[in-house]
Amino acid sequence: MEALVIHAAKDLRVETIVTEPVAPGQIRVRVRKGGICGSDLHYYNHGGFGTIRVKEPMVLGHEIAGLVEQVADDVTGIAVGDRVAVSPSRPCGRCTYCQQGLQNHCLDMRYYGSAMRTPHVQGAFRQEIVCDASQAHKLADGIGDGEGAMAEPLSVALHAVRRAGPLLGKRVLVTGCGPIGALIIVAARRAGATHIVATDVSDFTLRSATRVGADEAINVAEQPEGLAPYSADKGSFDVLFEASGNERALRGALDALRPRGVILQVGLGGDMTLPLNTIVAKEFDLRGAFRFHEEFAIAVELLNKGLVDVKPLISATVPFRDSGRAFALAADRSQAMKVLLDFE
Amino acid sequence: MEALVIHAAKDLRVETIVTEPVAPGQIRVRVRKGGICGSDLHYYNHGGFGTIRVKEPMVLGHEIAGLVEQVADDVTGIAVGDRVAVSPSRPCGRCTYCQQGLQNHCLDMRYYGSAMRTPHVQGAFRQEIVCDASQAHKLADGIGDGEGAMAEPLSVALHAVRRAGPLLGKRVLVTGCGPIGALIIVAARRAGATHIVATDVSDFTLRSATRVGADEAINVAEQPEGLAPYSADKGSFDVLFEASGNERALRGALDALRPRGVILQVGLGGDMTLPLNTIVAKEFDLRGAFRFHEEFAIAVELLNKGLVDVKPLISATVPFRDSGRAFALAADRSQAMKVLLDFE
Amino acid sequence: MEALVIHAAKDLRVETIVTEPVAPGQIRVRVRKGGICGSDLHYYNHGGFGTIRVKEPMVLGHEIAGLVEQVADDVTGIAVGDRVAVSPSRPCGRCTYCQQGLQNHCLDMRYYGSAMRTPHVQGAFRQEIVCDASQAHKLADGIGDGEGAMAEPLSVALHAVRRAGPLLGKRVLVTGCGPIGALIIVAARRAGATHIVATDVSDFTLRSATRVGADEAINVAEQPEGLAPYSADKGSFDVLFEASGNERALRGALDALRPRGVILQVGLGGDMTLPLNTIVAKEFDLRGAFRFHEEFAIAVELLNKGLVDVKPLISATVPFRDSGRAFALAADRSQAMKVLLDFE
Amino acid sequence: MEALVIHAAKDLRVETIVTEPVAPGQIRVRVRKGGICGSDLHYYNHGGFGTIRVKEPMVLGHEIAGLVEQVADDVTGIAVGDRVAVSPSRPCGRCTYCQQGLQNHCLDMRYYGSAMRTPHVQGAFRQEIVCDASQAHKLADGIGDGEGAMAEPLSVALHAVRRAGPLLGKRVLVTGCGPIGALIIVAARRAGATHIVATDVSDFTLRSATRVGADEAINVAEQPEGLAPYSADKGSFDVLFEASGNERALRGALDALRPRGVILQVGLGGDMTLPLNTIVAKEFDLRGAFRFHEEFAIAVELLNKGLVDVKPLISATVPFRDSGRAFALAADRSQAMKVLLDFE
Repeated sequence: MEALVIHAAKDLRVETIVTEPVAPGQIRVRVRKGGICGSDLHYYNHGGFGTIRVKEPMVLGHEIAGLVEQVADDVTGIAVGDRVAVSPSRPCGRCTYCQQGLQNHCLDMRYYGSAMRTPHVQGAFRQEIVCDASQAHKLADGIGDGEGAMAEPLSVALHAVRRAGPLLGKRVLVTGCGPIGALIIVAARRAGATHIVATDVSDFTLRSATRVGADEAINVAEQPEGLAPYSADKGSFDVLFEASGNERALRGALDALRPRGVILQVGLGGDMTLPLNTIVAKEFDLRGAFRFHEEFAIAVELLNKGLVDVKPLISATVPFRDSGRAFALAADRSQAMKVLLDFE
Repeated sequence: MEALVIHAAKDLRVETIVTEPVAPGQIRVRVRKGGICGSDLHYYNHGGFGTIRVKEPMVLGHEIAGLVEQVADDVTGIAVGDRVAVSPSRPCGRCTYCQQGLQNHCLDMRYYGSAMRTPHVQGAFRQEIVCDASQAHKLADGIGDGEGAMAEPLSVALHAVRRAGPLLGKRVLVTGCGPIGALIIVAARRAGATHIVATDVSDFTLRSATRVGADEAINVAEQPEGLAPYSADKGSFDVLFEASGNERALRGALDALRPRGVILQVGLGGDMTLPLNTIVAKEFDLRGAFRFHEEFAIAVELLNKGLVDVKPLISATVPFRDSGRAFALAADRSQAMKVLLDFE
Repeated sequence: MEALVIHAAKDLRVETIVTEPVAPGQIRVRVRKGGICGSDLHYYNHGGFGTIRVKEPMVLGHEIAGLVEQVADDVTGIAVGDRVAVSPSRPCGRCTYCQQGLQNHCLDMRYYGSAMRTPHVQGAFRQEIVCDASQAHKLADGIGDGEGAMAEPLSVALHAVRRAGPLLGKRVLVTGCGPIGALIIVAARRAGATHIVATDVSDFTLRSATRVGADEAINVAEQPEGLAPYSADKGSFDVLFEASGNERALRGALDALRPRGVILQVGLGGDMTLPLNTIVAKEFDLRGAFRFHEEFAIAVELLNKGLVDVKPLISATVPFRDSGRAFALAADRSQAMKVLLDFE
Repeated sequence: MEALVIHAAKDLRVETIVTEPVAPGQIRVRVRKGGICGSDLHYYNHGGFGTIRVKEPMVLGHEIAGLVEQVADDVTGIAVGDRVAVSPSRPCGRCTYCQQGLQNHCLDMRYYGSAMRTPHVQGAFRQEIVCDASQAHKLADGIGDGEGAMAEPLSVALHAVRRAGPLLGKRVLVTGCGPIGALIIVAARRAGATHIVATDVSDFTLRSATRVGADEAINVAEQPEGLAPYSADKGSFDVLFEASGNERALRGALDALRPRGVILQVGLGGDMTLPLNTIVAKEFDLRGAFRFHEEFAIAVELLNKGLVDVKPLISATVPFRDSGRAFALAADRSQAMKVLLDFE
């Protein structure tokens, strides 16, 4: 079986690796589609991000869907021939945080394709993967493998939206409309937000934002004062989802956010210099959102029932052996949202 | 100008009344459509409900939409020719509860067509009404007056749904699918509920429930054990909206509700005998939901943007002079959901 | 070793049983004090409650403290000679609810001295007990074994108080002032409630309520209108803790509870007939509270630091061989709050 | 009547001003004690803070208590001879935020002794003040005027604590132990926090912190690693109250804060550079807290009932004519917490 293995920045190789045997409680999945995530791009382009560096060869990837080829004898509810989205998240289930229902903060998390711990956790950009049956969620007929691979980033978006509290009837601003920002628009609309404004510096991504439901899209590079109409009476938006990781995007949105407004910081961007006095005086509520847990099942259920549509965000599907082209395309916000690898 | 005035049970008369002059801050609206509500039916059929009785002639009605005919000089944002939904709720704005943002508990509430206080607050089933500009919410082109009249019951449903906390990804049970129950289905779906089951004893209302989005509809008169599959592992539903006011409906749903489940009691039904030990042991959270406040503006915005569709729930439109027929039809759950009066 | 074994109503025997060996992760505790709980009284007087019946001999008891006599080699943090309060709660840690941090709803709970499942879970009214080290919480010097045995009912009270949300600055009503009601007063005061009113029908318990912090104590048998002054402007209390399990107590308190008031139902009392229309119109929030989980550690910490004082609630300590007298005294609300058994 | 009028930095004068007549709904209070606040110090030492500057002569002061000398005929509940604490906060009651119960965000707020708007709102460091009866809260016998003047900063602390959600059983860190930090310790203890750690760079303030209830006090200037023991397993504290306005204090506390920990930013300190990736990855919840509303009444009730004790924080009382000495002392964290002015 072949896999995409990162050795160092710009050194991503197709290598042959061995498929593990299927243990009790497990299944083997033939991977069909895999989505390239921002963290995959960081490993590929920079060998890591912040203090997290690739220290040994690691299979990349954590957004996948495929076909069930084998199931252990004790597994119920999943059968050979099912198509499934596979969650990359494997919390220990026993630590303090798992026992509090905060599995995304597990003290012993194993997340596919992550160099956070050493030995690194090997990823899912491979032709076959053996996983726990509980990681696999069946896709309905009519839901493509590519959409299934979107279950993971959709889970991230759903988690951020759930961290924001109820959105029914709320006014929402999304700064940064890459794949995660766009999926937040999808999720916020599904959660009942009545007015959604998106900002970015790329017209391509803003068009995608509009296509998935934004009421208004503002290119803040071209219209730096585009949010001004929302700043009257101390601000209009109830919730801001900051998905750019850019300090200017966050600072530029504060006037348009009403007192007691909630900010969900989703984008990673390192240190930011923030006007704490404004946060104090307007009593903002700035919350981090990180990965997901129960949202993976919700993502698949929403997809299966047609309650969300992520297809407009799939920009291209590229054979995994042509990964250089795929990663270059995925990094280009002027022409791509989500780029999928094809493992068939 | 003519109005529908209730004098006693079954004594509803078309009478001529005087339109008040338009004071500062006010507008005059030509009423076009008015929805018949469960409380209107109680006044009509029984002269009231519980301790609330019609003690003097009262114009009925509180679900209306129409055309703006006159605006006071100081009014901005609304113009002659606008079509509007009119909120029947006029809290005082100064009492303890208004100052806490709990206007639906105002100590000096004036709600159209209500005999709760004496003198009664006159209602809106009339050809013309003068109201505060703040009560009027503009309808978008393409949204009919009948849909506008639905803004009020939709507000009640939205309020109940917002009292339930976030529904994104939740499993929801609705018992009782008259107009309010059906609108709760609409609102819960809009808020992101992934699985919605409706129960009732009328196939007609259950068909309506399905039409507005219920995943499953169960006639519990015919299938008393219809909820049994949802009772495994201490129950499946996260939230129960009880919109029937029927004790058996509430009791029959408890096994299917998971521990820590939330029950929104919306239906009025007087005393009920409940298994408190079950509420304790499963730590349910039984909340009342009563009327609405900011939800009226949300209802109109959702309608205007096409984010909800209430048209499937409008069963008939009857001239207001034919009110006897209209009220008989509105009371018949085997053939009608919402019945509208036409005041033109 | 001797234990108190219930065979049937009124048939409680001192019997010799065998102490299990200490397995890895476990400790052996010499039990010193054990508190008699309302459920113990039900088993003793009626052979059970509701559908839960004693079907086989069962050691009673779940409120204990004692001296550590032995610890397994792998246990850290607890040593021979420590005095500990022992939690009777042993959730499985793996089921859906445990993984959501809702261990008190565990699908496979083993709770000392409970006939909820068969075979029954043997209890802790015994001279020695072997338990998991994680069940044992060290008592500080100066905290007596009797106070340690109170950690369990205090945990129940803390859980109810935590289910009520923040109490700082709130006005609280407690109906029913047996041991749990009185401990709720202790906990509510610790949580910052500014005004606490207690009602009961026994002057003895009301005196205890006052001793542990109630601002006002009302004997509603003698003063049926005692809460009337709190009913102006739709009610005064923010939170009602109903600890009597008595329908009249709950109904009688509703007028004094403000709109959006929270009711914590803690007392078990079977079916109650409630005015649902009032719950709807005032938008009450009636929540069950059942047992506890993380509150046990909090209870011991509050005791150890002197942040709560439960000593005023210990009415008597009786040798365990004299259990008949102890149980009779514990059942008499005119002269006893908590009665402890002495196992030394 | 004499008042303390600020003209510019270091230019604080005793001047004679006229007492307004008492209008309906108002009372006249002979001011006895006034507390010097951090914002008073900023006006005095720097002529303002940030963009807020003294542009015209302004009576300083907003923390006062005194004796009622006159009441309008229509005022009930307050009588000549009562001693009262006076709230400096006068929201409009009509704007969007007031109608949502968010009076501290009033669009037309008038807060004593504030240069936020021009003309400035005159303050309360004066011998007599005419105010609305609703601003005055009666002090119980035994509660001194100086304690009464502490009701205002105590309200700020209570507001911050209430913004943090329930604290019963929680572990709390307070960085910065000036008067507000110390009062937060008082309030957090009252709200049931089980473990409170205070940090500062002044041993004097840390001794005060210990005196009002901190379990541990750490001088982070002398022990930069003092919080390290709290950083195991991703952190120990549930809630951080940041009352220093110092970036290093906030950054230095993050490792000790558990995932999903809540940070209440209370101290004002302008721009801060923060590690947003940590906020994201640990899903912190950083909330601003600004002034107060209903907490003033709670503060007085807690003082009146002896449920909090603020006396240990009153460092000195200085005649108002000696304001230079008083302000110098108030600014010196090595020897003063709260300094009161005596207006008698």
